[in-house]
Amino acid sequence: MAGNSFGQLFKIMTFGESHGPAIGVVIDGVPPKLDLTESDIQVELDRRRPGQSKITTQRQEADKVEILSGIFEGKATGAPVALLIRNEDQRSKDYANIKDVFRPGHADFTYLAKYGIRDYRGGGRSSGRETACRVAAGAVAKKILGPHKIKIVVYTLAIGDIYAKKIDYNVIEQNMVRTADAKVAQAMIAKIEEVRKRGDSIGGILQCVIQGVPAGLGDPCFDKLNARLAQALMSIATVKGIEFGEGFGAAHMLGSQHNDPFILKSGKATVKTNHAGGLLGGISTGEDINIRLALKPPSSIAQKQKTLNEDLEIVETQVKGRHDPCLCPRVVPVAEAMIALTLVDCLMIQKSMELWGHAPN
Amino acid sequence: MAGNSFGQLFKIMTFGESHGPAIGVVIDGVPPKLDLTESDIQVELDRRRPGQSKITTQRQEADKVEILSGIFEGKATGAPVALLIRNEDQRSKDYANIKDVFRPGHADFTYLAKYGIRDYRGGGRSSGRETACRVAAGAVAKKILGPHKIKIVVYTLAIGDIYAKKIDYNVIEQNMVRTADAKVAQAMIAKIEEVRKRGDSIGGILQCVIQGVPAGLGDPCFDKLNARLAQALMSIATVKGIEFGEGFGAAHMLGSQHNDPFILKSGKATVKTNHAGGLLGGISTGEDINIRLALKPPSSIAQKQKTLNEDLEIVETQVKGRHDPCLCPRVVPVAEAMIALTLVDCLMIQKSMELWGHAPN
Amino acid sequence: MAGNSFGQLFKIMTFGESHGPAIGVVIDGVPPKLDLTESDIQVELDRRRPGQSKITTQRQEADKVEILSGIFEGKATGAPVALLIRNEDQRSKDYANIKDVFRPGHADFTYLAKYGIRDYRGGGRSSGRETACRVAAGAVAKKILGPHKIKIVVYTLAIGDIYAKKIDYNVIEQNMVRTADAKVAQAMIAKIEEVRKRGDSIGGILQCVIQGVPAGLGDPCFDKLNARLAQALMSIATVKGIEFGEGFGAAHMLGSQHNDPFILKSGKATVKTNHAGGLLGGISTGEDINIRLALKPPSSIAQKQKTLNEDLEIVETQVKGRHDPCLCPRVVPVAEAMIALTLVDCLMIQKSMELWGHAPN
Amino acid sequence: MAGNSFGQLFKIMTFGESHGPAIGVVIDGVPPKLDLTESDIQVELDRRRPGQSKITTQRQEADKVEILSGIFEGKATGAPVALLIRNEDQRSKDYANIKDVFRPGHADFTYLAKYGIRDYRGGGRSSGRETACRVAAGAVAKKILGPHKIKIVVYTLAIGDIYAKKIDYNVIEQNMVRTADAKVAQAMIAKIEEVRKRGDSIGGILQCVIQGVPAGLGDPCFDKLNARLAQALMSIATVKGIEFGEGFGAAHMLGSQHNDPFILKSGKATVKTNHAGGLLGGISTGEDINIRLALKPPSSIAQKQKTLNEDLEIVETQVKGRHDPCLCPRVVPVAEAMIALTLVDCLMIQKSMELWGHAPN
Repeated sequence: MAGNSFGQLFKIMTFGESHGPAIGVVIDGVPPKLDLTESDIQVELDRRRPGQSKITTQRQEADKVEILSGIFEGKATGAPVALLIRNEDQRSKDYANIKDVFRPGHADFTYLAKYGIRDYRGGGRSSGRETACRVAAGAVAKKILGPHKIKIVVYTLAIGDIYAKKIDYNVIEQNMVRTADAKVAQAMIAKIEEVRKRGDSIGGILQCVIQGVPAGLGDPCFDKLNARLAQALMSIATVKGIEFGEGFGAAHMLGSQHNDPFILKSGKATVKTNHAGGLLGGISTGEDINIRLALKPPSSIAQKQKTLNEDLEIVETQVKGRHDPCLCPRVVPVAEAMIALTLVDCLMIQKSMELWGHAPN
Repeated sequence: MAGNSFGQLFKIMTFGESHGPAIGVVIDGVPPKLDLTESDIQVELDRRRPGQSKITTQRQEADKVEILSGIFEGKATGAPVALLIRNEDQRSKDYANIKDVFRPGHADFTYLAKYGIRDYRGGGRSSGRETACRVAAGAVAKKILGPHKIKIVVYTLAIGDIYAKKIDYNVIEQNMVRTADAKVAQAMIAKIEEVRKRGDSIGGILQCVIQGVPAGLGDPCFDKLNARLAQALMSIATVKGIEFGEGFGAAHMLGSQHNDPFILKSGKATVKTNHAGGLLGGISTGEDINIRLALKPPSSIAQKQKTLNEDLEIVETQVKGRHDPCLCPRVVPVAEAMIALTLVDCLMIQKSMELWGHAPN
Repeated sequence: MAGNSFGQLFKIMTFGESHGPAIGVVIDGVPPKLDLTESDIQVELDRRRPGQSKITTQRQEADKVEILSGIFEGKATGAPVALLIRNEDQRSKDYANIKDVFRPGHADFTYLAKYGIRDYRGGGRSSGRETACRVAAGAVAKKILGPHKIKIVVYTLAIGDIYAKKIDYNVIEQNMVRTADAKVAQAMIAKIEEVRKRGDSIGGILQCVIQGVPAGLGDPCFDKLNARLAQALMSIATVKGIEFGEGFGAAHMLGSQHNDPFILKSGKATVKTNHAGGLLGGISTGEDINIRLALKPPSSIAQKQKTLNEDLEIVETQVKGRHDPCLCPRVVPVAEAMIALTLVDCLMIQKSMELWGHAPN
Repeated sequence: MAGNSFGQLFKIMTFGESHGPAIGVVIDGVPPKLDLTESDIQVELDRRRPGQSKITTQRQEADKVEILSGIFEGKATGAPVALLIRNEDQRSKDYANIKDVFRPGHADFTYLAKYGIRDYRGGGRSSGRETACRVAAGAVAKKILGPHKIKIVVYTLAIGDIYAKKIDYNVIEQNMVRTADAKVAQAMIAKIEEVRKRGDSIGGILQCVIQGVPAGLGDPCFDKLNARLAQALMSIATVKGIEFGEGFGAAHMLGSQHNDPFILKSGKATVKTNHAGGLLGGISTGEDINIRLALKPPSSIAQKQKTLNEDLEIVETQVKGRHDPCLCPRVVPVAEAMIALTLVDCLMIQKSMELWGHAPN
């Protein structure tokens, strides 16, 4: 209830603040006999970690993961898998000057309202640092999805108003903004650098494509697959909007345009178009699930801003420290992780239905 | 897990199909001593029920609610409140011709893939009829919110590309499309009628405004208030997109534009602008929470469509029966209900924190 | 949380008071294609219903069940199954004289303390009437267990200090006290009648034997199968003690006596003795699971008792109405139901583990 | 679901094996502003740790706890509190000879049946070592209960058939068997030593008394306070029986004997006797809650035992290593912890009901 756990059968609980000794996650429900090593997890953490390129924060964290439990001789035993990441670069002094200030766009004010106390060294649980634990747990989820042939692709669709056009999934990890259009990547990077030099930040859009999800995943009513994915992805602090299939475009469409007719393809039923984005009635159709996420510009900017402090005095604040001018490239692995965690949970729930003999498609 | 329950402390479980004997909901966690009568619930059901205007389906259902438990001498006892609505207008014959057809845009295909069996008389749990139970439970939630001075306003912002402009909440219930702009209402209604005459349907956008939410509501990480509201609202079958605050607009903004500076107002801290939409770090700021929902055009259209049947033969189908050409006006009370259910649950979770003496704002 | 739901994947929510219009239960997670009719449920309700013999309460309730949803053409669709039982024999006047009295042994005092209001017509949710809903849901669970060859046997082991000796499961349903020893049954019945004539009531012990549970059921730590069964069975109001295997006898034993050595039997590993009662480390061994339940004497007795009323005045009370002098025979089907509900849930959880290919024993 | 988490609002997840690098627990829902230091937790861990007296295992573990998160400047922030205990004395070689053996009374067989793989270095999650995490989390729960004036007393009532007679809570922590009768303590200790010398082990009974619980705690139906305590306590591996109030004695009583009449005491309603053990209808009465737990003799004994190995060969096994001849003294703090965790959760749930103004007694 207190918000730090996720999942029903494949269940995680995360902990840790950016300026405490460590962050981590406990994963309950990891399949016995799964091959798992620290490097399976480290490779995903490296994709999220700070300091990986000139357009991300220059804060340096190795984010080295240690497996504390649940793995014996390289295999999962069915016991909870606990993952620990020690914090290294705790420059608390960067925060001394904002100790009692309500930074605009940050959760300082709301956390104080909620808890009556706040950890002024950083955002505490509202810091983006907690997403490292999502990525670590997501790496385990991806290992589980492997044999199921489910592939999760996430890339930067837009930085501000610069959009990727010619989509090629192969180039995503080859450019530092993680877009799927190698040409447009340069313009996006230039835009981010220009914004950062002005002490500002910029928003963007991520495109998610989930391939190979079997038809029949998700539950009716409140636990529709899109509803569960919406919670999972909207829980990433920087996400302000989410669309499935045509999304807001559907509001302008007619039923005769939006309906996807069923057709035969290699002897199997499929849909001619995919306006619905791979989901009908909240259950997967077997087609690609298409999702778009709107990311706000990061709140930490180097420009001076007027705001209040805890004594309700007007103060001028300048967020020091080393921050991301744009979050798109670093949120890519976080979004992948949240999707993977949700899918493993839904697959386990679906599997539980087979008790009485019905094997879903 | 099977998807038909919602909430953690204020918890509902819904049941029933459109063509079975009854639908209903059980609500566990209703505050003892709450005054509650059937008319408190009926008034909300009447706002959702079919046949209420010329632009909604002409299916006639009184949707008369019966309280089965939990209320004694007009007051809640703390026991679960069960609400029953008998189905009246079960014209199953309307469905005879689509018995084995995968209607485009409907969940026939995905339910069969999931369960290996389907109730061909209608959409079963994927039918919009289940939302009556949400509205009934939401009416109870609204009664609870009453003394907390939280007000939920939902209205039609757009039908296709016709947008409300001069917003006046007072007119929402005075026009059949439930928009907040009395003038534009006529154009919207004309558009819906035109579309219906062509045997087609149309999408739209709902605007939600939640006023009076105290600062500090919502939980960190996975249970952010926006994440929980996203699941709640995305679980309404027709919703394909959701935005908080600037939403997708934030993707085009700079941090210096999007950050809301804190200012003093009547001796209290507040924000100068509200780009964030009333939430920072997933916790409420005390400002209005602004949400927009994209609604797809209804899948049931009178035009002939080509599709497949269960034998994978190409067939021509025509959805008979009486359907909504646009869902906006009828989803308004459903969205209100989902918001109310979520807020009551979050308020109870927040209250539980006071155990040790801290009263949040 | 409010206490009226049970189960994680196979999930029920019950509602209703003994003196309201109806009681019922919604079951979410019923397997699609399961054959289910009202008579499958009625047969179990008839075993629990009042008035079935001279040693149970003479209150007359047909307890006729109506299936409201989830079944189409005799088969489950995967949608929630709602079951309704209308109350018939609501003699509220029987309660007029105890309206503001704290009946000794009853929950009048604690419900008032908890909720600040109470439904004085009867015990409300603390009434044994709510167990009819458990039995109805349990009947569905039993249908699911059928093909799994799991058999649940519950019988009266003792009434007061009269114990069954020669155990024969075949006679349980042939005597009105539901004991497994046809000879002792007469003495037990005579004892109950004698006690009732004196306006008193008497306690007893139930023995539960669960046969055919596959090895590997249950989860580690907090969700051990015995822990889950303990909650399930201790939630029956009249149960005051529970033992697994040797139970309290184990406290007097040595390790060398209590340890069950593993031996070979028909080429399979099994245990020579079964002191552990079919569970090791909270996980089933494949042997019979043996449980004993201590039932207190019913609190409703015809003798005059001194107690307090809500104004804290000393009053003399006499519980009128028609009550059970001993609950053993009627709790037998309730205990069976709680065991069945728990096992189906555990089987589904276990099945969900097969996602990655390991089929447990 | 996978069994390693406990609690609804005050929620813990534990992890770790006895022979891995570390064990630990994450606690979500710790009240903000709670004063908490490592020594608050260490003092409880020291009461449970091995090697504390001649009648417990001689395995040496400092069980030094490290707080990883959730505490800032000595106070809880509302973020999850993660506690880590590094394992020190991992003598895996002690287990080399039992690597593929199904030790009688242990979970080797059932874990292999469940997971298809087992960590042969020790019991994995079935090892008593996991209870250190319960004690650590329980220490936090006790800190929360402090101002609520709830006191949890647990002591050894019997070792085999030697029972404490003259009960004095003050002596419990002054004798190594943690009984409440200083005189009988010596006989109990002598008994344990005698049993150990013979390479055997012995069972016992714990008595739990919970004082100061306000009337009104617990929920109806499935979440009765006794039902929740039963799961909590039965989840301790060594517990085979549990009684509330008169327990199995109630089975032999008449209603006229067992019913506790309400009387006035200092102007407040209370009960004359407390046969019910502080609970009516599963809700607390305000009187002492009395519970007895039956503990089986530890399964690890030094005597040679015949059993099977994984190849189903008959082998003779002798459990080496250093084990407890009787678990009573070390389970005392574990039982206290489980009670404390349950009560904090119930108090938070009860507090959430105050949303609408009713303050329970």
